[in-house]
Order: sequence, then C-alpha cells, then structure tokens
Amino acid sequence: MKNDGTMVNAYVPGKGNLSAEDQALVARRVRALGPAYRLFYETPVHLVRGEGVWLYDAEGNAYLDTYNNVASVGHCHPAVVAATARQAAVFASHTRYLHDTVLDYAERLLGHFPPELSHVMFTCTGSEANDLAFRIARAHTGGTGFIVTENAYHGVTYAIAAMSPSLGEGVPLGEHVRTIPAPDPLRMTGDLGAAFAAEVQAAIDDMLRHGIKPAGLIVDTIFSSDGVYEGPKGFLAPAVAAIRAAGGVFIADEVQPGFGRCGETMWGFQRHGVLPDMVSLGKPMGNGYPVAGLVMQPGVIAAFGAKARYFNTFGGNAVAAATAMAVLEVIESEGLQENARVVGDYFAQGLRDLGKRHDCLGPLRAAGLFLGQDIIAGDALTPDAARTSRIVNGLREARVLISATGPRSNVLKIRPPLVFSKANVDHFLQAFDQVLARV
Amino acid sequence: MKNDGTMVNAYVPGKGNLSAEDQALVARRVRALGPAYRLFYETPVHLVRGEGVWLYDAEGNAYLDTYNNVASVGHCHPAVVAATARQAAVFASHTRYLHDTVLDYAERLLGHFPPELSHVMFTCTGSEANDLAFRIARAHTGGTGFIVTENAYHGVTYAIAAMSPSLGEGVPLGEHVRTIPAPDPLRMTGDLGAAFAAEVQAAIDDMLRHGIKPAGLIVDTIFSSDGVYEGPKGFLAPAVAAIRAAGGVFIADEVQPGFGRCGETMWGFQRHGVLPDMVSLGKPMGNGYPVAGLVMQPGVIAAFGAKARYFNTFGGNAVAAATAMAVLEVIESEGLQENARVVGDYFAQGLRDLGKRHDCLGPLRAAGLFLGQDIIAGDALTPDAARTSRIVNGLREARVLISATGPRSNVLKIRPPLVFSKANVDHFLQAFDQVLARV
Repeated sequence: MKNDGTMVNAYVPGKGNLSAEDQALVARRVRALGPAYRLFYETPVHLVRGEGVWLYDAEGNAYLDTYNNVASVGHCHPAVVAATARQAAVFASHTRYLHDTVLDYAERLLGHFPPELSHVMFTCTGSEANDLAFRIARAHTGGTGFIVTENAYHGVTYAIAAMSPSLGEGVPLGEHVRTIPAPDPLRMTGDLGAAFAAEVQAAIDDMLRHGIKPAGLIVDTIFSSDGVYEGPKGFLAPAVAAIRAAGGVFIADEVQPGFGRCGETMWGFQRHGVLPDMVSLGKPMGNGYPVAGLVMQPGVIAAFGAKARYFNTFGGNAVAAATAMAVLEVIESEGLQENARVVGDYFAQGLRDLGKRHDCLGPLRAAGLFLGQDIIAGDALTPDAARTSRIVNGLREARVLISATGPRSNVLKIRPPLVFSKANVDHFLQAFDQVLARV
Repeated sequence: MKNDGTMVNAYVPGKGNLSAEDQALVARRVRALGPAYRLFYETPVHLVRGEGVWLYDAEGNAYLDTYNNVASVGHCHPAVVAATARQAAVFASHTRYLHDTVLDYAERLLGHFPPELSHVMFTCTGSEANDLAFRIARAHTGGTGFIVTENAYHGVTYAIAAMSPSLGEGVPLGEHVRTIPAPDPLRMTGDLGAAFAAEVQAAIDDMLRHGIKPAGLIVDTIFSSDGVYEGPKGFLAPAVAAIRAAGGVFIADEVQPGFGRCGETMWGFQRHGVLPDMVSLGKPMGNGYPVAGLVMQPGVIAAFGAKARYFNTFGGNAVAAATAMAVLEVIESEGLQENARVVGDYFAQGLRDLGKRHDCLGPLRAAGLFLGQDIIAGDALTPDAARTSRIVNGLREARVLISATGPRSNVLKIRPPLVFSKANVDHFLQAFDQVLARV
C-alpha cells in the first residue's frame, strides 16, 4: 500500500475555521518552528489548561480528552505535579552520582515485570528507548536485520525512523529492515498466530537470502498505528518463537499499550504469554515529564555492557525518577489498571450498541482503554477514510478529542487518560451518536 | 591513538573507600541498572541536595560544583523550579495543539541568534537534536558523509554514537564517518585555521575517493571532549568554507559551550565569525529539565520538511518551554554571560598564577567559564594522565568536583555553573593548590 506520508488528522494550512488570534499563532509557528511541524484537526485546538480528562481552550470551553495517553493518570495530576516540584527544588542531577531516587523507582518499576526482566535503563523518550534497544540487539546478536509491521511507528531517531513505515515514503526504510503485514484478522487467512509467524519467517528467509543476519522483531504489542490489533490473546507467541529460532531478539514496544492501559495486564506483551528480551517504555511513564526507559533480560545487555557505556544526561535524573515514581504510585493507589479494564469494557459495549444503529461502524477492537473502531462503507473490508475524517473533526467541533490511524486512515483511535469514568464514556457516546447522525 | 573506551574518571567497582551504605547503593545499581552505567570518581559521591554552586551529600557535607554545566544557572534555581511547577500544574501538552508557551520561548530564543538562523525545532536531549541535524543534513545535501574530530562526543543515538569516537572502539564509527585531528595548537603545525581546514579537505577528498558524498562537518565549537580548544578566535572559518565548497553543511554543536558559558558570546560559533547551517542545543537549556533543540537556516529544512514531518511527544511541550524560558530569563536578568566572562578571566588568571609554582600545570585554554588545564610531566607535549586522575580524585576528597577529558586523559575539565563567583574561584584555587602539593 502506498503511504505518501500525509498525516491522518493533520491540519491543512489555509483550511479550517480559525479565529484571528489562532491564525496569528499558526503564522508564528510557521515562522519560528518551520515546515516539519503538524497540528491536529481541520481547525486546530488552542489549549491553555488541563485537568483530569478535560482540556480547556482560551475561552474556557471544556474538551473531553479521549485521546491523550501521555497524561495517563489525568492532566496535571496534583500528586505528580507535587512530586516534580518537590524533587526539582532539592536535587535534579544525574546517574553518575549515587542517589537513591532512581534506584527506588527502578526497583518499584521492575516489580511490575516478570523476574527475568530485571534490568532497566533510562532515557528521555520512547524514541531513545527503541534506539537503545536497536543498539543492544545488534551487539547481542551480531545481526543487523529488523522486522516491523507495515504501518509501524517506533520513533524519530535516524535508526528508528528507518523502521517506522508509518512516517511515509519520504522517510526511507533501512536496507536491513523488512516489513510484514499487521495481524489483521480480516485480511489474514487461517489461524492468526500461525499466519503472522509465517510472515515473520518469510521476512527472516528474505533477509538471509540477502546475507542479512536477523537481529530482532519489534512490535507495538497492540499495533497502535497499524490500526489497533489486540487479539486474540496469545497470537504473538509463534512469531516470537520464529525470531528467536533465527537468532534474533523480541522487543516489545510498550510505549503506547503499557502502564495498565490494556486493563487486564500491566503490559501488552503479557496478554500474549510471551517473555520479551527487551521492553521499551515511554509516553505515560511521567504523565508528561520526559522520561522513558528500556527493561531487559540481563543476558541481552552483557555484550553491549562489556564494550560500551551508556549515559543519558537527563535519563534517570532525580526529578524524572521522582515524577515517574509518583505516576506509578497513582496507577497503583487509584486502581487505574482495573479502571481501564472496567471502563474499557463499558466503552466497548457502548460502541457495539451504537454499531447496531450506525452502519458505518465496522469491526471494533479493544483492550481496556485502548480502542480501535473501524469506519466502513458497506462491508467490513471497505474502509471509509473520508467519513473517518469527518467524524474526528465533527467530534472536535463537539469538543470531544480523538484521532484516527491505520494504513487506510479509517480507524478511530480512542485512547483516553486512564482516569476516564463511565460518565465520561456516556458523554463520548452521546456526542459520537450525534456526530454519526450527521456525517 | 587507541581508545579502548575506558571512561576518564570512572569508578572502578571494588576500588575506592565507600561507606557500607554506599556499597549497598552500588550493588543495587548493578542489579537494577545493569552493566552499562558508570559512576564518577574512585570513591563515588552520594548526593542528596543541590543549591547554587553547592551539592550536598547525605551527611550534609558541601561540595563545590566546578563541573556541572547542566545546572547552569545554579542547582535548583528557585525561579526555574517555580516556572516548572507553575506550568506543570496548568497545562503540559504537546505541539500538535496550538499553545503560546512554545512560541513565546522559540521567539525569545531565536532573538539570541543571527537573523539567518530563524527556525527552531525542539527535542528532549542533545543526542536527539544532533540526530535530527543528521537527518536534515542528509535530506538537504543528498550526501551521507560526516566529518568529526577524533575524540568528539555528539550523543548516544545509533547514528550519533557512530560519529562520537570518544565512546571508544567498542562503539564502531560509521562507514560514512571520517575523523580529523582536533585543532590542538601544540600538535598542529603552521596556521591553525589553515591546518584544520586542510584536515577537513583531506577527509572530504577521502570520502569522494570512496564514492561518499559529503553531508556535513559537525563540531562542538569549543571541542570539549577533545581537550577544550577555544582559539584563536576565527580559526574555524576556513574549515567551514571547505565543507560548504564540497556541498556539505556546517553544524555547530553548542550543547556544551552554548547559553553564555564562553563569556564574550552567547554561542561558541560566534567566537569564530561563522554562520552555521544548524546549531544544536542541549544540556543547560532547561537547567536539568530534559529540553533541547535545533536552530537552523530555513533553506536547510526545506527538503526535509517537504517530505517528512517531525513530532517529538515531549519536545517543546508547555512545561519544557516554560522551564527553558525561565532559564533564559535568568541568564539575561542575572547577567550570567557577563559573569562567565569576568569570573572566567579571573579563574584563568588564578590558574596561570598557580602554574608558576606547579610544574605539572601545562597549557591552559579558557573561554569564559569553560576551562581546560593540561597536566603534564616535564614538557607541554608529555601528558600525565595518572597525575590528572590523582588531582581529580584529590579534589573530590577535598569536596571540590571537577573531571578530566581529552584523548590523553590529561586535561582537567573545569566547567562550573555560570553563577560561579570570584570567591568560589578562590575556594577552588586554594583546594587545587593543596592537592597539587601532595599528588
């Protein structure tokens, strides 16, 4: 499938219905930030405040945030803000001095993983975490070949952009990168696990035919940018076995599904009963503070650690660690993983009920508070990207924020903060129902 | 010169004189963080608090910080901490919504650059900024070849680690990377500017002979990890002309010298009267908050912007922008660039005076509060790495923090927060004098 790099749900300059003030902001952006930045929506949203699941514009209008997975414990959560402020006022320095904070957090975080995953290294972004995983996988395996899904997104460093096909054809994939179809149950025939593993094996065979030694398979464990593929549970296991048999590692990218979003499990990979060699973490880890990390089995880092050091000036600094600790404590104390499960199930049921009255609502995929709703024209295999865009923008006009994704731009990506309530779901569904009636 | 990757001033496990408590922390680090992390000093420092130029250990002992260039306006500066806390409590989200904070900061920051450098893009780390520069330079020039100095450090992403020879031979350089000697006036013969440009030209010629089209020359404008080479002013200009003539761009890495540290100018490149195509920023930009950026001439980003988008989830978020704005306001309102010039000159004079009484003090290089002091045995060309290490660790025992650098591990790297006072210099010089007398 062609991917010209046009971002789903990007603002097109000159379009939309912007106030004079917002037009001036857009002009300032172009002048100061240049041509590579993008805004969301036909008419971008100008935001000034956030609280819980709500975002507010300059006029005080409230928007229901059903999309931002960074502010996962709620925008501006007071316990997290307090932890950041408290630590920033006392000590903020890095991991080349001894300090307790980063170790307290590392141990608490590792307590949420199977015992085999016993090391964690800290970076500032998910891109940096995946870039480090790339370096470690090469050192450990001696290979260079990586397998990704065909609309994957793993980050923006040079190495990781070259294995993020969703960035479009303007960003070339690496010679050592192979793409495979996403595990789409509608478009893959037979048993999904076997079919997906066969695609991995075919990519391995093609690499070997070209003299490329496999280094790893990396997948977002809920395949977010491919269109949200959450199941059936366990289908990933044969693919992981295939890459291991070829000498490569399995890297679970948990930047989007991790930290309880999937409801039943803390991490997406746990839904599949597999044990990754490395697990990358990012977005929600600091609820907006730039902190990310890479969890790994000790055997994987031995070769890298013997010949290279890793230092990330801000990675694991005391403020990052204190902030991430506060986020983890909120997830635990407010029961947000369980909330994601319960409210996510309620959300999915509500969408299925709406689907009985709106023909454009196709297959729904959901795990906790990560939902992908296909928008179709007629049958499940006929995507309707234009209507998807109208829905996203219609909801924005109704002050409900979501976005769209997938290689056919027809999947509503619904991914609210984990503090979302059933009342918030009702609010969403009511607005959605009204928008569907007119688009 | 061989570089086995041993980090200068790294703690060697099992050595040093650690308390039982600190030994336990070291053991926890190894268990939780794995083998790729390093601590400073023969006996690592366990820190719990920072204020201004002072860092404090768990027993309340004060250490004079003469090394950390991240906390550039002073550890835990109250105005910066307040800005972070204030913005984090109100709105923390990203650049795909309109918000004023990032634009206010972008414009204020660009006001400190020549008008040709009129775009800025935001990342979280200097590594990400240089990685983005790498991608943009390739898109703009159509080339792939990069030139760096032989002990350069530009970051830790895969692409940038492959052009950071100071990481040692365990981290291979890219096939498309050429290293040139640092502009060391002791070891380069003839006019330094002409000699350095000749090295750049030789690297270009070698690339072309191998079918590699040059993309760029990137230098830290004070050559920090090469041993601190600040002058003579203007010597960089012929090298910049050489890479431009070959179709490549010039990238000024200001992660270490930038934001007023060099005293006379805000940016290191301004000392040389050159106009970079891109300028990368990092460490001191947020005084510890993970924020970094890339400033550029619009012509350079046109090709990249036409076919690729760039989004960094945390880069330029509202809290990052508010924090960086506070840092810039402190630099301006407290006159820290001028302080760096005045106190830096005083510091350099004090070191020169000490040099009259201590034969091991060789050539000194200084620009503002960035000083490199060679430690020698007999003549200026004979480095004394062992004594350098004894000095660094002797000062640490005297509770004065610095480190060492350079390909021969014999350069004291002195780089205090910019709020350093003449009284702080006197404190340093007194401790230094005593340590020199016994090592």
